[in-house]
Amino acid sequence: MLYDIQSDKWREECGIFGIFARQENVALNSYWGLYALQHRGQESAGIAVTDGNVMDVQRGMGLVNEVFRHNLPDMPAHIAIGHVRYSTTGSSLLRNTQPLLVNYSGGQISLAHNGNLTNAHEMRQQLEDKGSVFQTSIDSEVIVNLIARSTKPTVEEKIIDSLAGVQGAYCLVIMTENKLIGVRDPHGFRPLCLGRLGEGWVLASESCALDTVAAEFVRDIEPGEMVIIDDNGVESRSFAKTDRRSGCVFEYIYFARPDSVIDGQSVYQARFNMGRTLARESGFKADIVISVPDSGTTAALGYSHESGIPFAEGLMKNRYIGRTFIQPEQKKRDMSVRIKLNAVASVVKGKSVIMVDDSIVRGTTSGKIVRMLKEAGATAVHMCVSSPPIGFPCYYGIDTSARKELIASSKQVDEIRQFIGADSLHYLSLEGLHASIGHIHEKTLCNACFNCDYPAETPCEGDCANNKFLFEPKAK
Amino acid sequence: MLYDIQSDKWREECGIFGIFARQENVALNSYWGLYALQHRGQESAGIAVTDGNVMDVQRGMGLVNEVFRHNLPDMPAHIAIGHVRYSTTGSSLLRNTQPLLVNYSGGQISLAHNGNLTNAHEMRQQLEDKGSVFQTSIDSEVIVNLIARSTKPTVEEKIIDSLAGVQGAYCLVIMTENKLIGVRDPHGFRPLCLGRLGEGWVLASESCALDTVAAEFVRDIEPGEMVIIDDNGVESRSFAKTDRRSGCVFEYIYFARPDSVIDGQSVYQARFNMGRTLARESGFKADIVISVPDSGTTAALGYSHESGIPFAEGLMKNRYIGRTFIQPEQKKRDMSVRIKLNAVASVVKGKSVIMVDDSIVRGTTSGKIVRMLKEAGATAVHMCVSSPPIGFPCYYGIDTSARKELIASSKQVDEIRQFIGADSLHYLSLEGLHASIGHIHEKTLCNACFNCDYPAETPCEGDCANNKFLFEPKAK
Amino acid sequence: MLYDIQSDKWREECGIFGIFARQENVALNSYWGLYALQHRGQESAGIAVTDGNVMDVQRGMGLVNEVFRHNLPDMPAHIAIGHVRYSTTGSSLLRNTQPLLVNYSGGQISLAHNGNLTNAHEMRQQLEDKGSVFQTSIDSEVIVNLIARSTKPTVEEKIIDSLAGVQGAYCLVIMTENKLIGVRDPHGFRPLCLGRLGEGWVLASESCALDTVAAEFVRDIEPGEMVIIDDNGVESRSFAKTDRRSGCVFEYIYFARPDSVIDGQSVYQARFNMGRTLARESGFKADIVISVPDSGTTAALGYSHESGIPFAEGLMKNRYIGRTFIQPEQKKRDMSVRIKLNAVASVVKGKSVIMVDDSIVRGTTSGKIVRMLKEAGATAVHMCVSSPPIGFPCYYGIDTSARKELIASSKQVDEIRQFIGADSLHYLSLEGLHASIGHIHEKTLCNACFNCDYPAETPCEGDCANNKFLFEPKAK
Amino acid sequence: MLYDIQSDKWREECGIFGIFARQENVALNSYWGLYALQHRGQESAGIAVTDGNVMDVQRGMGLVNEVFRHNLPDMPAHIAIGHVRYSTTGSSLLRNTQPLLVNYSGGQISLAHNGNLTNAHEMRQQLEDKGSVFQTSIDSEVIVNLIARSTKPTVEEKIIDSLAGVQGAYCLVIMTENKLIGVRDPHGFRPLCLGRLGEGWVLASESCALDTVAAEFVRDIEPGEMVIIDDNGVESRSFAKTDRRSGCVFEYIYFARPDSVIDGQSVYQARFNMGRTLARESGFKADIVISVPDSGTTAALGYSHESGIPFAEGLMKNRYIGRTFIQPEQKKRDMSVRIKLNAVASVVKGKSVIMVDDSIVRGTTSGKIVRMLKEAGATAVHMCVSSPPIGFPCYYGIDTSARKELIASSKQVDEIRQFIGADSLHYLSLEGLHASIGHIHEKTLCNACFNCDYPAETPCEGDCANNKFLFEPKAK
Repeated sequence: MLYDIQSDKWREECGIFGIFARQENVALNSYWGLYALQHRGQESAGIAVTDGNVMDVQRGMGLVNEVFRHNLPDMPAHIAIGHVRYSTTGSSLLRNTQPLLVNYSGGQISLAHNGNLTNAHEMRQQLEDKGSVFQTSIDSEVIVNLIARSTKPTVEEKIIDSLAGVQGAYCLVIMTENKLIGVRDPHGFRPLCLGRLGEGWVLASESCALDTVAAEFVRDIEPGEMVIIDDNGVESRSFAKTDRRSGCVFEYIYFARPDSVIDGQSVYQARFNMGRTLARESGFKADIVISVPDSGTTAALGYSHESGIPFAEGLMKNRYIGRTFIQPEQKKRDMSVRIKLNAVASVVKGKSVIMVDDSIVRGTTSGKIVRMLKEAGATAVHMCVSSPPIGFPCYYGIDTSARKELIASSKQVDEIRQFIGADSLHYLSLEGLHASIGHIHEKTLCNACFNCDYPAETPCEGDCANNKFLFEPKAK
Repeated sequence: MLYDIQSDKWREECGIFGIFARQENVALNSYWGLYALQHRGQESAGIAVTDGNVMDVQRGMGLVNEVFRHNLPDMPAHIAIGHVRYSTTGSSLLRNTQPLLVNYSGGQISLAHNGNLTNAHEMRQQLEDKGSVFQTSIDSEVIVNLIARSTKPTVEEKIIDSLAGVQGAYCLVIMTENKLIGVRDPHGFRPLCLGRLGEGWVLASESCALDTVAAEFVRDIEPGEMVIIDDNGVESRSFAKTDRRSGCVFEYIYFARPDSVIDGQSVYQARFNMGRTLARESGFKADIVISVPDSGTTAALGYSHESGIPFAEGLMKNRYIGRTFIQPEQKKRDMSVRIKLNAVASVVKGKSVIMVDDSIVRGTTSGKIVRMLKEAGATAVHMCVSSPPIGFPCYYGIDTSARKELIASSKQVDEIRQFIGADSLHYLSLEGLHASIGHIHEKTLCNACFNCDYPAETPCEGDCANNKFLFEPKAK
Repeated sequence: MLYDIQSDKWREECGIFGIFARQENVALNSYWGLYALQHRGQESAGIAVTDGNVMDVQRGMGLVNEVFRHNLPDMPAHIAIGHVRYSTTGSSLLRNTQPLLVNYSGGQISLAHNGNLTNAHEMRQQLEDKGSVFQTSIDSEVIVNLIARSTKPTVEEKIIDSLAGVQGAYCLVIMTENKLIGVRDPHGFRPLCLGRLGEGWVLASESCALDTVAAEFVRDIEPGEMVIIDDNGVESRSFAKTDRRSGCVFEYIYFARPDSVIDGQSVYQARFNMGRTLARESGFKADIVISVPDSGTTAALGYSHESGIPFAEGLMKNRYIGRTFIQPEQKKRDMSVRIKLNAVASVVKGKSVIMVDDSIVRGTTSGKIVRMLKEAGATAVHMCVSSPPIGFPCYYGIDTSARKELIASSKQVDEIRQFIGADSLHYLSLEGLHASIGHIHEKTLCNACFNCDYPAETPCEGDCANNKFLFEPKAK
Repeated sequence: MLYDIQSDKWREECGIFGIFARQENVALNSYWGLYALQHRGQESAGIAVTDGNVMDVQRGMGLVNEVFRHNLPDMPAHIAIGHVRYSTTGSSLLRNTQPLLVNYSGGQISLAHNGNLTNAHEMRQQLEDKGSVFQTSIDSEVIVNLIARSTKPTVEEKIIDSLAGVQGAYCLVIMTENKLIGVRDPHGFRPLCLGRLGEGWVLASESCALDTVAAEFVRDIEPGEMVIIDDNGVESRSFAKTDRRSGCVFEYIYFARPDSVIDGQSVYQARFNMGRTLARESGFKADIVISVPDSGTTAALGYSHESGIPFAEGLMKNRYIGRTFIQPEQKKRDMSVRIKLNAVASVVKGKSVIMVDDSIVRGTTSGKIVRMLKEAGATAVHMCVSSPPIGFPCYYGIDTSARKELIASSKQVDEIRQFIGADSLHYLSLEGLHASIGHIHEKTLCNACFNCDYPAETPCEGDCANNKFLFEPKAK
């Protein structure tokens, strides 16, 4: 995950896609699939293809349609994997784009990764000590080196062998000359699902990508499962078992598209339920319910449904957001929000408003939106957040937020309310969140950013060291 | 206007912006203003500036943030005008971008135009007969030649002199070395409004652009009004009177952003009312109301409000739409819609659905969406359209739809329902539309595309000739 | 002409090319033809084509192969005209690229121009007074407006009518829907020649472009001649007579390619003769003769031939000169020359050297080269220049050199020698120059930059006004 | 080396540059240095820099000034290395650009390579067997993996350790956080020299790059020598000895710039001598001596000097050669040559001509040039080649010419003469070549392409296998 300063949101790091289909244009399907996953990463994109013999890859900085406008791999192929990525500025380099494509003793292999290894640094060190060199700063290069060094006879076994050593979050799509392989880590941090497209097969981070290429959803890949797809169909192997399944709760709150279904649960229904629960928990009353578009809308509809307070579009979002927007001068207060959002005066004027958003990281943007609504005539703004306060960093995506930057790590709820200038503020309770998602109990989700209960070991390098002063991460 | 085959919508042709402000970075404000008007034209963009002495212009193909990423005019300036444009493929040329900037006997002048002159062809011919040459195919070049040929002493009078000869729709922002001038045609086809930014002034097609640059809305420019802005403030002149005010009704139905207020009427409220009226007129009952996002959403909320049937997000739209998306092969039926929209199965499965959209041009896209909803499990789809059937072409934007391409010009409502596969179909009545917008009577709006009552003469060249077989356009 | 600060040379402004050929790919031939004329202009390029019905034009900034890499007009066509341009930074704008393509009362017309009108400013003013507007700052737009305003019945007569009003230097290629027209001004300042390509015809600034497209040289276009090429062949008209033919002498000295033949005289032979004459005039003796490559080489060979002193390559030029080279910091003395030229120490060490260059404008570069040679071990550098001292500005190209910037306008030859640090310095005499070119007497060439004898009226605006303090231009 | 079909020349593969200088802008100096080495590779360029802590690299496809126009590394730095590359189409990929920059157990290291390892394939296989992965197809990646796997304690020793295993041609510049290291292989196939720039040091493939950055030539790096440059100055180590020094003879014939001095011999003088020797050996008499520009010119001057026959510029070369020139249709015979070269009719008409070129690979281009000269009126063309017949492939660059494509491998000299249509043909003898270069005897140069005497083992894979039918490569 990554913090986006403009929207005050964490960002998902990556989306992955894979296809094995002899009757399809696999590059084109990957293109559409990645387009459907574009919300998971807007910085770079790549597609690798093979015809069973030659492998080729095209990668570039930018949105899917920018990268592939003139560069979609055009060789005949029946296997392809693809990747979209969002990353920090520091490492936003062409050489860090995925999928990787390498030659090794077993032939050619291409790999794309969603997630964050918590022991990547340590594994790189070990590999370097054995003589490996690293040309990128992405975790995929660690995994591919582990595969290349495995002495196991088959590529499947080499992969399993490699994964024994890595910790943290990883969903992988891997392509060899004749196989498409999908892997989900034993905790199941990130989602991965399988679809059927004619005689072929598709793997994708989210089911919305299956819908887009007109593939039929088959099932989620299980935590600790590897699927091997070739001309013989789909073979499943369990390569590890976990005593603690822990899917990222933020996929339901914010990351995934509402039209996706993850681990059996509709994201839309989860968010709608969060809104209903918020209404019951907060008990806020007002003239209208509005959302911070687009991510808060489904929960706002749930709030409206439960409370009977009408939903209205109180904030309009500019639909044409580009990558390198020229930023306002600092002196123009609130300008950065104003460019992207606008209050609808005819909706909010003279009204008390319940505003539903999915999360607050630093709280700066929320404050600007509240002010904008009041300037447009709202008499009161009661803010409801469809997640608990974020008090702890995430180590299973790319976490750049040290704990001290999280407003909820140092402020009580009422202090936050004051900071953002809202008349009321309610965060969804962790119990309410779990009930909304409908999982039987909290142990199937990772909620560490809310309660510091990390399901796996966390890294102890970099400014993690500083975090240690703030809290004691529990081991699993 | 222009037909967009992918969404089955007409497209607005242009948005314009102007600013006179000695304390502001006028180029940067124009940039943000055009960004707020991006929905009015995504094909090209341009900004012209002056410091009272030198004039410069930057124009290019693409979205605002693409065109100006490295090219924002950076000379000191206190006046600027800007333009965004959407046009047909045939004339999507760099040389057709605006603003125009020319030298003429009166000095330098720059001009940007929103609208379509109905006698442009004839005026060009007349000007060519007098020795003018034309380097572009845009109407602005006609106007600027008329200004240059006027024998009146001042630039204001030259402009007024010129406009006496042109017919059709035009809102103009014009920049001289020391003045910013705004003009709205006597029918008021297209919107134009005035705002205050500190000590300076702003003109924009829609009020949402004023909000974005933090300018205060002052008032709409009146039909037949010219405003002249310089260091002495704003001077208003009435340069023509009309016996028939006729603002484009489609600005309320679809073109404008919901957070804009046009001629005193909130676009949001108009659309919300259309939905309420649709509910009353259609009487349709179902489990849920959904919209075709994003343009149908406000009306759908109105329908839900009036009928008491819950609103839900039954269709999700991909937010990352680029300019040159690689299109699916023809054989993949429904694919072009599938890439941009996806049904939310958890919302529509087993439900009867009322689907609200703003308009139907050819009906092809509607059919694909209905099919998508049914495949996702909707038991019935009742379609409500927040406009009457479009039976006649528009001559006041760029109308490329010959009448025969309009499904409502040759099919009855029930035939259209069958064509799109809906279980029911209701179009908003013209009376209902007017009531929703709240204008006192229909004579203040142009409804010609619904009832063939053209408020001004229509052109008789090109394939207009063919239209003559279909209907007899009435003169005003 | 234009001053190039890096090489201390004037630059030719433009090259033009035209083709009428039903059996050829006229766009591709124009591309190759312009490539052969690239030395006449490296800033922008353009090609316009017609199939007798539709006209299209592609223009862009950059070298021929950069502009047309992906953009060569690809419609079927049998007429094309093309243009390359070098211009000052101030007006290096996309909108100033050629050919122009306009609609006027007579249909469509496209035009490309090499030369400089001396009364362009005045003509623009007159046209503006009659109501014309100007979108560019190029002379071609003046001519095209004059054509459009002519009341003559045919396009040929309109062109002739227009040219009656303009003064200065112009070679034109003009394309209508069915004709290719070539024009050379009555003084014949700039070259233009006619070639035969199969059943078709070619016009080009220099014969080297005919060679490149494998066309056969037919003849030079005469001063005051217009050729009209269509399916009936080539028709010639004399549209004006001149009492003073005055081809630019600098075409022979520097501008044209040595493999071109201009007005019956081989450029190579002219330069070779200049070198021979220099040897006789200067009487310099040394160990070797070297040239400042590439333009001084042919004259240096002539010097060697006449004097018997061996020619050697004492300076090597980097062949990979790009447009936007990153310049050295000022502190690095001589660096800007060092990047492009290098002395060959093994050639010059311990040798006295005669260095032949074609011209000196400000003298700054010559000084750096002399220093470079001495640092490489040359014991003496005797400089020979194959033109007389440039003491007066040129008004028939784009002259940006005010007289005061010309070193020879304020310094005697020996002062210049001292300034550049040479041991000796000899300029070719005007008589020697004429004898070398072999024209019967000086009256067939324009030598105004050497002797202030302007063959036509010179303009009196801009900093020309300042020049008036320096000299009294003679009228013809 | 690589065959260039358009000029019928082999192409040098790479140029390298390195700088250690605390008082200089090392990135900018690398830029100018690479620009001076541009003739050694025009396909891609890269510069890596370090400030002793962070390393950064910029690489791209294109000429030096294209790649770095907006991308020159701009961090403060005191060490930099750079690379230019020419390669086959098949592997002209962004991921194959240099310098490589990797992390390994010893920290960061960056490396650029000129040459071709003859056992690269085998070494890759061995490394892959030990678990290495390869992301590129360049030899540098092999070397860097060997360094990373070395167990020696220092980076210098690791490098020496690595080089023990590789065979073939390699000049390397290597950058660590605090050292610049230069290496030349034990045979000295490719050149590398050392220069002094103020308090700093420069390494470059050719001395012309030292001149360009105003560095003073110090000495050539010896075969088998490694120089380590840091704040303590330059340390030299001999890492291997060879029983056979064998500098590439083609550097003198064609690759290097004439203003470079390689291994103590001026390239210019060597070429001049080749021309003199050609005159003596051939005894050809004619009216003039001309060259195929630019590479044949120096030898042609030598021929003229020795024979007393005047030198003239009989062929003109277009100076504006771009990367992706649109090629003529096949039917246009000779067009591809005509675009780049033109005969000067006034020079050659009615003359018998001696034409000097540096080499003939397939002979196709030579034939076109001879024809062009005859069409321009040359009465006879006697061709002199300043190298012996090329009968054997090169394995120490990138050799893509199988032996059967070399015209001299299957045709006698008189057959070649007939093929190219020349009246006479003389190749420089091997003895004459050696005498011209002035090395004491042939054993200090590699002449394998002429006499099949390979100084080191040659590879036996790929179509090398086919070559085996043609000749028996001798081991050293």
